[in-house]
Amino acid sequence: MTTPLLAVDRDRIAAAARRVMARCEELARVTATPGAIERVYLSPEHARVNRLAAEWMREVGMTARQDAAGNQYGRIDGARGAETPALMLGSHLDTVPDAGRFDGIVGVLMALEVVRLLRSPDADARRVDLPFALEVMAFSDEEGTRFGKALLGSSAVAGTWDESWWTLTDADGTTLREAFLEFGLDPGRVGEAARRPDELVGYLEAHIEQGPELDERGESLAVVSSIASARRFQLVVEGEARHAGGTPYDRRRDALLGASEAALAVERICRAEHHIIGTVGQLETFPGAVNIVPGEVHMSLDLRGEFDDARDRVWDALARDLDASMGRRGLRWRAREIHRAPAVFCRPLLQDVVREGILATRAGDTREDTTAEPATLFSRAGHDAMAIGAVTGVGMLFLRNPDGISHHPDEAVSAGDVARGIRALAEAVLHLAHDPAHAQP
Amino acid sequence: MTTPLLAVDRDRIAAAARRVMARCEELARVTATPGAIERVYLSPEHARVNRLAAEWMREVGMTARQDAAGNQYGRIDGARGAETPALMLGSHLDTVPDAGRFDGIVGVLMALEVVRLLRSPDADARRVDLPFALEVMAFSDEEGTRFGKALLGSSAVAGTWDESWWTLTDADGTTLREAFLEFGLDPGRVGEAARRPDELVGYLEAHIEQGPELDERGESLAVVSSIASARRFQLVVEGEARHAGGTPYDRRRDALLGASEAALAVERICRAEHHIIGTVGQLETFPGAVNIVPGEVHMSLDLRGEFDDARDRVWDALARDLDASMGRRGLRWRAREIHRAPAVFCRPLLQDVVREGILATRAGDTREDTTAEPATLFSRAGHDAMAIGAVTGVGMLFLRNPDGISHHPDEAVSAGDVARGIRALAEAVLHLAHDPAHAQP
Repeated sequence: MTTPLLAVDRDRIAAAARRVMARCEELARVTATPGAIERVYLSPEHARVNRLAAEWMREVGMTARQDAAGNQYGRIDGARGAETPALMLGSHLDTVPDAGRFDGIVGVLMALEVVRLLRSPDADARRVDLPFALEVMAFSDEEGTRFGKALLGSSAVAGTWDESWWTLTDADGTTLREAFLEFGLDPGRVGEAARRPDELVGYLEAHIEQGPELDERGESLAVVSSIASARRFQLVVEGEARHAGGTPYDRRRDALLGASEAALAVERICRAEHHIIGTVGQLETFPGAVNIVPGEVHMSLDLRGEFDDARDRVWDALARDLDASMGRRGLRWRAREIHRAPAVFCRPLLQDVVREGILATRAGDTREDTTAEPATLFSRAGHDAMAIGAVTGVGMLFLRNPDGISHHPDEAVSAGDVARGIRALAEAVLHLAHDPAHAQP
Repeated sequence: MTTPLLAVDRDRIAAAARRVMARCEELARVTATPGAIERVYLSPEHARVNRLAAEWMREVGMTARQDAAGNQYGRIDGARGAETPALMLGSHLDTVPDAGRFDGIVGVLMALEVVRLLRSPDADARRVDLPFALEVMAFSDEEGTRFGKALLGSSAVAGTWDESWWTLTDADGTTLREAFLEFGLDPGRVGEAARRPDELVGYLEAHIEQGPELDERGESLAVVSSIASARRFQLVVEGEARHAGGTPYDRRRDALLGASEAALAVERICRAEHHIIGTVGQLETFPGAVNIVPGEVHMSLDLRGEFDDARDRVWDALARDLDASMGRRGLRWRAREIHRAPAVFCRPLLQDVVREGILATRAGDTREDTTAEPATLFSRAGHDAMAIGAVTGVGMLFLRNPDGISHHPDEAVSAGDVARGIRALAEAVLHLAHDPAHAQP
């Protein structure tokens, strides 16, 4: 059993978890859609949650600022002042449409509590000296809801911003460049958000699992081994819009029937591969009238897998299938790739400290099996850690997500699991501080 | 061969057809969507085309007014003045989204030319005395684009307005009642648009075929025998919105996959019946994000057939199929019927005069086979005549529609066919005037 390094009593952790839960509710009220939760990149809601996060960062003794890509950033220096390399903690504050309260958000708020436990000048616990600075990052765009491109915020921090993104448009036709200007950001300065590898010790992210595995195992926390490989496409199926009544079946080139076969082919082909999942989340018919045969369909495709080669094999098989099925119906199809991320493997040292952190939470907890290895999961969902992996080593801690419901108003996490997660994350930071390798970027 | 009754030379008919073609272009410029054609019920575009139609009605000597449902109405009295029962001619001026130039429109404009040929005081042809009044009706809503309910305009005239329609909403949430008020109409007076059977001799409508049969036969015009039986439904498929990456296949209840199977089932089941066509023209996913498994799908279903019983048999078979396929996926589904119209059979006398009219157009036309019977077609598309059939006998004349393309910007009709159609319609009116039964409603 791992000896806990954090000299903090249970009540203080429980209070931290309650604060996290209350702030999740507070942030849920910042929404573009009354009665639901929706906060997208560069929106008024984005500005509001950044201001709240800045206030909470200052409350735990951090300096706070918004970076050149709209990420909200807090820092508390280490031994060597502003030059000390930093361990980044965090996640994102943006959401999908009709979102839950915890995806991303809980990771940012837990990071703040870890800073409070370890470094807050008003803490009643002994103030811990760390060999690195601590930073908390509230990333501004992980979901890609507004511009269809995920991980915009963390890509800016990783220095992998792509100039072609400026012309991406939202549903109203606003370009990413225009949205930057409207938000008060200078597109020409987005490069200033990028971090150098030598400034960073690593990145640790706590996140709900967004899947049912921990819930099924009856465990609170997991070490993440890797983050799924992903590709996203926008597919267009072209047929011919014709009058619904007047056009006999033999004269129809119905784009929706081709798209329906495509959606079912995605399921069939992905299920035939191990650990690959494909989702058609958006589908729109044009012109979209009750009495017109659809002449065109736009649909999204999200492919994820543990390994890049299996993911690509599925895409190739699907493309061959669509060539055949669309051809039979006299339809044409095309695909535009809008996102591609290789599988990202968590750094072994950071997996180790997360594992030590989880083990440390079991000390004195009679409900937990204190001897079993913590669960190690592969993440099918994408996370900011994927983008940050391009600039520094990453590690992730998963929290149990009841029934695996996420991206949905019923998304949940328990206060008890948040408390264990805060302790595990703080322990992971302390274990990293004790590791001789801690200063290596 | 039928002897032509209309003493009008070819040049005057050709000029009338050119005017119809030019006015189709003029009306096409009245649109809510720049670069495309879209005019929906109770919109500013509706008001503009009504004003144009009123002007053109007055130009041919008619009195013009807008009725209590926003239909534009013109009348020229017969022998007994305002008490004379009327033969109504017409069609509709509203459109689907991204419409063509002719569907409905050409029938209204041809009706005006028939009035000009037969009754205009400034006509150089001998002024024809008719035993009935002539009315031209430009119906305001045939397509049902805005409120999802077709034939609103002609239903008001037929006296079959349903009080439950007032709460229908458009895409912006505006109710039909609110739209009436915004347009300047009084919902409480919609009943005043209704006609009594004793006021009417019948209704004749010219319309493009919206199908390829005349084009395939190489003929210009057809008699319509009946108008398709139709039912329309809004289907809702309910699954569960979940994170696209984190949810394994066995945990998914993907509403889009159920909806895709439903769309393909519509095709499969309809094709197994004779003369039945089903179309899913609208399909929307909720929440509609690239990284969320669709939790709900809304889709339209339009079923048409020559006979009511076959149409209903298809719906029952489809419902059984959906119960099974949705059940296998853990999905629920429900349907709301938004439109039901029985097959409407054209009155034999009106079929006869339309047939005489078509035969008369062949006199002196060496390109036409003057001995063959004109084509008689069943209309798969719905028309205002369906609704008007509830209050008076109806007849229809179809015009060749190249390649059967309709509800699409490429929708076409030739000026030559419009000229033949104007002559046939005028001849049909004269043949009806000569028939001893003409005064029977």
